[in-house]
Amino acid sequence: MPLTPHIEKHFTAAKTVRDVVIGMSDGLTVPFALAAGLTGAISQNHVIVTAGLSEIAAGSIAMGLGGYLAARSDADHYAQEQAREKDEITSVPDTEAREVREIFQTYGLTSEESASVVESLRRRPQDWVKFMMRFELGLEASEPSRAWKSALTIAVAYIVGGLIPLSAYLFMPDTHQALQLSVVVTLISLAVFGGVKGRFTGVSLIRSGFQTTVIGGLAAAAAFGIARWIG
Amino acid sequence: MPLTPHIEKHFTAAKTVRDVVIGMSDGLTVPFALAAGLTGAISQNHVIVTAGLSEIAAGSIAMGLGGYLAARSDADHYAQEQAREKDEITSVPDTEAREVREIFQTYGLTSEESASVVESLRRRPQDWVKFMMRFELGLEASEPSRAWKSALTIAVAYIVGGLIPLSAYLFMPDTHQALQLSVVVTLISLAVFGGVKGRFTGVSLIRSGFQTTVIGGLAAAAAFGIARWIG
Repeated sequence: MPLTPHIEKHFTAAKTVRDVVIGMSDGLTVPFALAAGLTGAISQNHVIVTAGLSEIAAGSIAMGLGGYLAARSDADHYAQEQAREKDEITSVPDTEAREVREIFQTYGLTSEESASVVESLRRRPQDWVKFMMRFELGLEASEPSRAWKSALTIAVAYIVGGLIPLSAYLFMPDTHQALQLSVVVTLISLAVFGGVKGRFTGVSLIRSGFQTTVIGGLAAAAAFGIARWIG
Repeated sequence: MPLTPHIEKHFTAAKTVRDVVIGMSDGLTVPFALAAGLTGAISQNHVIVTAGLSEIAAGSIAMGLGGYLAARSDADHYAQEQAREKDEITSVPDTEAREVREIFQTYGLTSEESASVVESLRRRPQDWVKFMMRFELGLEASEPSRAWKSALTIAVAYIVGGLIPLSAYLFMPDTHQALQLSVVVTLISLAVFGGVKGRFTGVSLIRSGFQTTVIGGLAAAAAFGIARWIG
């Protein structure tokens, strides 16, 4: 695939950045909101830290292994569809050739205009399979080895994100003072993280920082409200 | 895109199912693990239920709005790249035509074989942009209206998933008995959910059920261990 420079950059960064964003978005938000929520109901630092660390353990494992399975299942799906295309190209080549012509028809090309491409692909089954994977099915080959890397990246990002709001409770004995510090530190972290995230997702720095902070704030406010209401 | 029936089915189901899977995987796992973890440290139903409901509120909002932003940012990214391609096709058509030839070269086609396709696209700029979006950049158009639907689906799936493990603590006064019931009910739910998920992701029913149950169990065990260790 002849990727132009701007796209190549986008794709290379995309996978790891996406994993960091997945892990850190939730890591900064959910343990923060949980700690804030519990502060509304239970004024015991010990309980809040225990709950927070349990949540970080559970969340990082659930998200990391979830990411692992998603990556594996993408790779499996690709292999399955590839085997099917290979089979179809051997057993029903005329049907597959018609599918190629139909792909080009959706871009306004006549059968005559795409004929030379179709004939050329028919002579090289391997390239033909590759072509169908991408152009009929829109699937990208993925490295199966990425699954573990993806799982670890998500999990570590979640842990790092989660320890930021919790650290206030570790260092301040008074729960309500800890909450205030936690809110300040976490909202700043969310704004910075959101801004950095924006650079990679193509959203403007300010807008992305604002959105991320609002999500974290809303989640924490909802958790606080619910905990106070029950507690 | 002339999707063959099996693919069409796959794609139609994929988006909503993916959202339900995203929400419910974490919803069944994290509140379950948190409640189990807290049971290891604090034998107060009241605290566990408060923490659990706070987590469900925080998690569903964080994941739902996260899903919303992801869908929006995909749509924005598509619009941006589309505008860039449109611009390039008008301002540097020869460069873009060379890019089309290069795309075909990666499938072993000579410039002569792809010439008629290139010429045909040059005559129809709209189709040409569409072609570049899909074949150069591998991007799919997405409906912006899906963002809210996606957010709601993820959030509701998270809430439903999270209430299953927590319900044991709501109905049983004894924390350790509640944990036992919660473990049984949740592991069964994870196995069933994993099996159903497998039908959509193409993983075998048994394998998918097993994987999902193991992730939930591991996350809960880790949370339990950490909470007991600190608590």
